[in-house]
Amino acid sequence: MSLLVTGSIGIDTVKTPYGISEECLGGSAIYFSMAASFFNPVRFVGVIGSDCPYELSEVFAGRDVDLTGLEVRPQSKTFRWTGSYHEDMDERTTDRLELNVLEEAPPKVPEPFRDSKFVFLANTAPKLQLELLEQILEPVFVAADTMNCWIREHTDDLRLLLKKIDCLIINEDEARLLACEQNLIKAANMILDMGPWVVVVKKGGSGSLLCSADGKKFLLPAYPADDVNDPTGAGDSFAGGFMGYLAQKGSTGFDILKTAVAYGTVTASFTINDFSLKGLTLIGKSDIENRFEVLRKLTKF
Amino acid sequence: MSLLVTGSIGIDTVKTPYGISEECLGGSAIYFSMAASFFNPVRFVGVIGSDCPYELSEVFAGRDVDLTGLEVRPQSKTFRWTGSYHEDMDERTTDRLELNVLEEAPPKVPEPFRDSKFVFLANTAPKLQLELLEQILEPVFVAADTMNCWIREHTDDLRLLLKKIDCLIINEDEARLLACEQNLIKAANMILDMGPWVVVVKKGGSGSLLCSADGKKFLLPAYPADDVNDPTGAGDSFAGGFMGYLAQKGSTGFDILKTAVAYGTVTASFTINDFSLKGLTLIGKSDIENRFEVLRKLTKF
Repeated sequence: MSLLVTGSIGIDTVKTPYGISEECLGGSAIYFSMAASFFNPVRFVGVIGSDCPYELSEVFAGRDVDLTGLEVRPQSKTFRWTGSYHEDMDERTTDRLELNVLEEAPPKVPEPFRDSKFVFLANTAPKLQLELLEQILEPVFVAADTMNCWIREHTDDLRLLLKKIDCLIINEDEARLLACEQNLIKAANMILDMGPWVVVVKKGGSGSLLCSADGKKFLLPAYPADDVNDPTGAGDSFAGGFMGYLAQKGSTGFDILKTAVAYGTVTASFTINDFSLKGLTLIGKSDIENRFEVLRKLTKF
Repeated sequence: MSLLVTGSIGIDTVKTPYGISEECLGGSAIYFSMAASFFNPVRFVGVIGSDCPYELSEVFAGRDVDLTGLEVRPQSKTFRWTGSYHEDMDERTTDRLELNVLEEAPPKVPEPFRDSKFVFLANTAPKLQLELLEQILEPVFVAADTMNCWIREHTDDLRLLLKKIDCLIINEDEARLLACEQNLIKAANMILDMGPWVVVVKKGGSGSLLCSADGKKFLLPAYPADDVNDPTGAGDSFAGGFMGYLAQKGSTGFDILKTAVAYGTVTASFTINDFSLKGLTLIGKSDIENRFEVLRKLTKF
């Protein structure tokens, strides 16, 4: 089934204990699309300025990513992020942030994309996520990401968004913040009460937790990565693998959701192996399938 | 097969965000024995002073815990610990520590216990763990716990101990400290190079990691506890369930080790439900079996 993503396109400079990656292509829509394209065609909606040094049609060459929704604004500048990861790679500091085009009006969803069935609203102001969602005619399954600043400062908009989506994909600290509850199981249940019928809590190196409103749960450890060089994009790659698999199946039964979490986990495990997009561009679908089977074996008892 | 534990007996005062438990019975050997006794008879070796307000034969009434190795020293005082758990329950502060009898010579392993096959050396100075181990004639599987102060300040003794045990059961931060490596998979492999052929890394609310020297791995999330009142004793209860199951099976094949990690996880999940030993004393074996099946279902895909 059709899969649409709205999110950022960024120029990232990333420092980790294992190296530096300067002026690389990044952003949530980029990582998501690269990850999801292993499973399903992707409809891409995002905006850049005229300064973007990357040609996205080349970046996605050979992948089924429809860039009809890419808007280039000649008078604007592309979003830029510079960040540093700490020794434990689970925490990072933003050294410099230039929102640029992300502070302007969001891109429009092109007419041919409005019939999209699976939709991922990557992290941005919940008001913009709502605006984007309103342009989709009859979505089947809408997932969104959010972060601490929106939870803290745009609570009303976020509460409104939560009532209109099927699934929230969220980091563990953000889940605790949103629910005002330290216990993660309780926090997930409280988020389900806010609207979505599925919550996926991402716990970085500690795996993920899937909960649905009918009381079903699934716990999955992270893929045991012994070669982590750059965690940037891991969350959006997880979302890409997760949503890509769901769109491929065209179904959201709990067993399908569980398998989707496993594919998200495995896809993200490749992202963190290398800097920027390299971890995802140097592999094929068979690499993902192989790690999927390894993860299944590693967790079975 | 026979299972022996050497460890502490303590009088604990514990504060958590959910309550206070004053002058309760605690200590590694107590939690371990209570947990392991669901699976296998336990031979108990530990020492208290004359001030201990608890009659251990009453505490373990109805359980197959042989207290022949309990030494009461009339001139000594029992070990005491006062601690507070923080809001997230994964971190705690020691408010007061009175080692008392633990600063004296360790207890002797009684003659009838020297033929023990499965042995758990709970956390104490590695030199004492070595002394205790030397008294066991022909152990089949020896596991030990340790902590940051021994890793930092008794490195040589600990390195010697690691060459003589089969399995190290260790917290994730301590594993990183011991291996001088942030990546947990790499750290576990480095610890395997130090001697033991099995390493179990406990990650609290994030589950556990089992690695063996032949390259096999197993990942298990924590049981999804939504009612955590007192994490004290969780690690020793994990070790008790783990070692109890291994001793019951009399075997240490990797599939048995995996199942033992799951039983350790489930047993510890009851410990944290309530203060002190209540979480373990109010349940039966069928409760453990039920949660074991729930955990299996929650992690299967």
